[in-house]
Amino acid sequence: MKGSESLLATAVAAGVQVCFANPGTTEIPLVEAFDQVAGLRAVLALSEGVVTGAADGHARMTGAPAMTLLHLGPGFANGIANLHNARRARTPMINLIGEHASWHQSADAPLTSDIESLAGPVSGWVSRTTSAATAAAEFAEAHRATRQQRLPAALIAAADHMWAEGGEPAEVAAVPGPPAADDQQIAAIAKLLTSGRGRPALLLGGRALAPDGVRAAARIAATVGGEVFAERSPARIDRAPGIPPMRPIPYFPEDVLRVLDGFSHLVLVGARTPVSFFGYEGLPSFPVPDGIAVHTLADVEQDAVEALRALAEATGSAATELPVPEPPEVAVPDGALSAAGIAAAIVRTQPENAIVVNEGVSSGAAFPAIAAAAPPHSELTNTGGAIGMGMPVATGAAIACPDRPVINFQADGSAAYTLQALWTQAREQLDVTTVICANASYGILRAELRRAGIDRPGPAAADMTSLAEPTVDWTAAAKGFGVPATRATTGAELLEALRRAHAEPGPHLVEAVL
Amino acid sequence: MKGSESLLATAVAAGVQVCFANPGTTEIPLVEAFDQVAGLRAVLALSEGVVTGAADGHARMTGAPAMTLLHLGPGFANGIANLHNARRARTPMINLIGEHASWHQSADAPLTSDIESLAGPVSGWVSRTTSAATAAAEFAEAHRATRQQRLPAALIAAADHMWAEGGEPAEVAAVPGPPAADDQQIAAIAKLLTSGRGRPALLLGGRALAPDGVRAAARIAATVGGEVFAERSPARIDRAPGIPPMRPIPYFPEDVLRVLDGFSHLVLVGARTPVSFFGYEGLPSFPVPDGIAVHTLADVEQDAVEALRALAEATGSAATELPVPEPPEVAVPDGALSAAGIAAAIVRTQPENAIVVNEGVSSGAAFPAIAAAAPPHSELTNTGGAIGMGMPVATGAAIACPDRPVINFQADGSAAYTLQALWTQAREQLDVTTVICANASYGILRAELRRAGIDRPGPAAADMTSLAEPTVDWTAAAKGFGVPATRATTGAELLEALRRAHAEPGPHLVEAVL
Repeated sequence: MKGSESLLATAVAAGVQVCFANPGTTEIPLVEAFDQVAGLRAVLALSEGVVTGAADGHARMTGAPAMTLLHLGPGFANGIANLHNARRARTPMINLIGEHASWHQSADAPLTSDIESLAGPVSGWVSRTTSAATAAAEFAEAHRATRQQRLPAALIAAADHMWAEGGEPAEVAAVPGPPAADDQQIAAIAKLLTSGRGRPALLLGGRALAPDGVRAAARIAATVGGEVFAERSPARIDRAPGIPPMRPIPYFPEDVLRVLDGFSHLVLVGARTPVSFFGYEGLPSFPVPDGIAVHTLADVEQDAVEALRALAEATGSAATELPVPEPPEVAVPDGALSAAGIAAAIVRTQPENAIVVNEGVSSGAAFPAIAAAAPPHSELTNTGGAIGMGMPVATGAAIACPDRPVINFQADGSAAYTLQALWTQAREQLDVTTVICANASYGILRAELRRAGIDRPGPAAADMTSLAEPTVDWTAAAKGFGVPATRATTGAELLEALRRAHAEPGPHLVEAVL
Repeated sequence: MKGSESLLATAVAAGVQVCFANPGTTEIPLVEAFDQVAGLRAVLALSEGVVTGAADGHARMTGAPAMTLLHLGPGFANGIANLHNARRARTPMINLIGEHASWHQSADAPLTSDIESLAGPVSGWVSRTTSAATAAAEFAEAHRATRQQRLPAALIAAADHMWAEGGEPAEVAAVPGPPAADDQQIAAIAKLLTSGRGRPALLLGGRALAPDGVRAAARIAATVGGEVFAERSPARIDRAPGIPPMRPIPYFPEDVLRVLDGFSHLVLVGARTPVSFFGYEGLPSFPVPDGIAVHTLADVEQDAVEALRALAEATGSAATELPVPEPPEVAVPDGALSAAGIAAAIVRTQPENAIVVNEGVSSGAAFPAIAAAAPPHSELTNTGGAIGMGMPVATGAAIACPDRPVINFQADGSAAYTLQALWTQAREQLDVTTVICANASYGILRAELRRAGIDRPGPAAADMTSLAEPTVDWTAAAKGFGVPATRATTGAELLEALRRAHAEPGPHLVEAVL
């Protein structure tokens, strides 16, 4: 079989379900191989930012690597921003990057570029195919690497290696589970927490956010008199009765200092020490109040859930009854819309078992603040700060979980980066409801100007943070890409629009005018 | 003054007119400085692919460096594809990339990434600011580098260096003109061309495509019995009475071999040896027929126009009367549209002195084939093969030349990459008429499938090269971004739509349904 066919057959055997794609000429042998090898679904997107973001969303929901097909250096480059987020989310995925025929690479044809240099910053593993006969094994190695590292892998596939005969499917190696946390460290932390001195904060991130991890942490906190925090912008967080709510780590460093004030210890579980999103003069890079001792129960590589179970045992918390908190009150939104009103409308109409992709940016914190009142759901957030992840991640999550409704709580400025995702949602008839928080500005930059003491921006600063003149007509743009859309300007209109969107199959967009 | 202010003041003093921008938090001091330093126009775009493509278009028309303002590694990454094209176009431009405060960089905050690794492949010069006091001098060095190299330069500006006081505007150094071509080489080529043996082809590219270069080359060809070719996909080509038309180098290597067949010599003037766009089995990377001797009169760095003048002198061609060719016949397009019909409609309605940005891809060759019949105009093409340049380059060209109408001959697949440019066209009320060649497919990939012997693609290959189901409604998408639009399905409708668009100020989009 051809190199391309052996590669796809290896992907199928490894359990890869979907390949998000925007192919070009160098990828023609791979395009053609999709008709020869059964079992791998190709999902076309209109730009590579959608391709990579969708793969991220897919893998966050399935836990298994998704795959992309991209066109040389420039095609890959268009997908880098969402790969940056995927890297921060520790998402396994294989980016298959088509490349010129091996004998043509030194000719410096127009599309030639240094793909390794572009791929390195967002990949844990980068390599090239060397022949048709070895391409499948090289793919298998990429698959092993991405599962072991939980970072995107990049395999650069030369067109002649894909066209040539002589390929053989390869076997994908098993990878060991995450390494165990250090027993002595667990014991030491247990001793600390049961000493009766001070008040510990447990900060959960990554793997620790699995429901079993959260429950164990909540039992520990209830037993020793501490509190459980979730890292800022987790890749995925699940909420349901029986999964205790956590306090979020806020965005601004002064707020992090405030919420951590009064704790004696900060125990990291699958999370890093909180880091300020940006550097603000006079505030620390790592906003942890002086006098708080930081301990790592499990680092981001380690088996955080098992470490929490062990800590629960060691602290006598394993059988502690979980507190059942009162869900927050969520008022019926009425009158003109606000970020809080949009979040309230979403929570009040949210179907069971939804996936909420939150790229609300300056409006985004309104949702997690009341999400405990919503029916069971998963929330996926912007892990790396590269905007334009919402619509693509929602697309990939919907492909991964066809039985779960997807809600995309979406800022308008970020939506404008990758609205092409709507086309894939229409094409695949995905059950995604996009709610655009249309404040017609880069609201976060307005906030940053105020923080910097610029309360009245001059005309240039006002202009460069404004998305008005013209305001984007999101209902027209959605129609352009085949997605039915409505506009809501009041709470009542938004509730009605969301109920209708949830009741109908396929994608919808609601422009919520702020 | 602040570092940011000193940097912008230096840009103004250097003659930079425009900064295309999509800023974020780390760029706030620069955003704010636009209100303190007069003379530099900030043009906001909704995504960085628009920002960098617009800067490319601007610089191609003015010949002077434009400037961009981009948000850290991920923001820069979104602009790489159009910087790839700018690099191939030898476009001078300065990409100012905001970065975390210097003291915050080692904290590995979410948006931190290896910017140098991302910038290297598309830049001739990459550096970082080191302090507020030196930032202006560092910018001046970037400005010198980009003019001298005619390649994009990247300056990574730390937020604290931009906020801090102590900046001083710096002087921008003059750069020497292009080096002269070798006199002995000119004399040797003159001897060859006047020997009476064989038939030479002159291949012009880059600087040689300036009207004076083309005229000199045409005189030489008329005198010695040769022919003048233009490189495939030039950055800019001007057409007018008195600028002799050149034969284009075709896209596919077998066609290049065909058009060069029968020549004895190939004289390169500011152009590289033709290179196959992709590597096709059985065809060479450099499609030059055996037996053609290749000579370089002036390489891409050298003063090609002066070399052509000297060669004209040496070959006794300086006073040769220029042939006045008959313009091609351009039929009135009628009935259902074709690529040729769209090109004919554009040529027949084209205003004087237009700028035609051609990203027609599979429909694109239809325009240059008949462009000699159009009124005087400049054509800008896709130099690097990274798609999504048309709308952004058209936007930047319109900003550069407010008195010239801009026509964007645009493939639909490529348009879907960067249609966000329409918003900037609406916001700045640019006189751009976008003609979408709406064939609802990646036509070039369909052609490549046929070349590969796949006349009937299977369902997966058909699906992955189709932009139907749903077809993009370009009139709705344009309306979404504030640009009035119409749809044309016949030649008569297209002619009427173009006449109306040209008669009205501001941007328009015409969806030409194929």
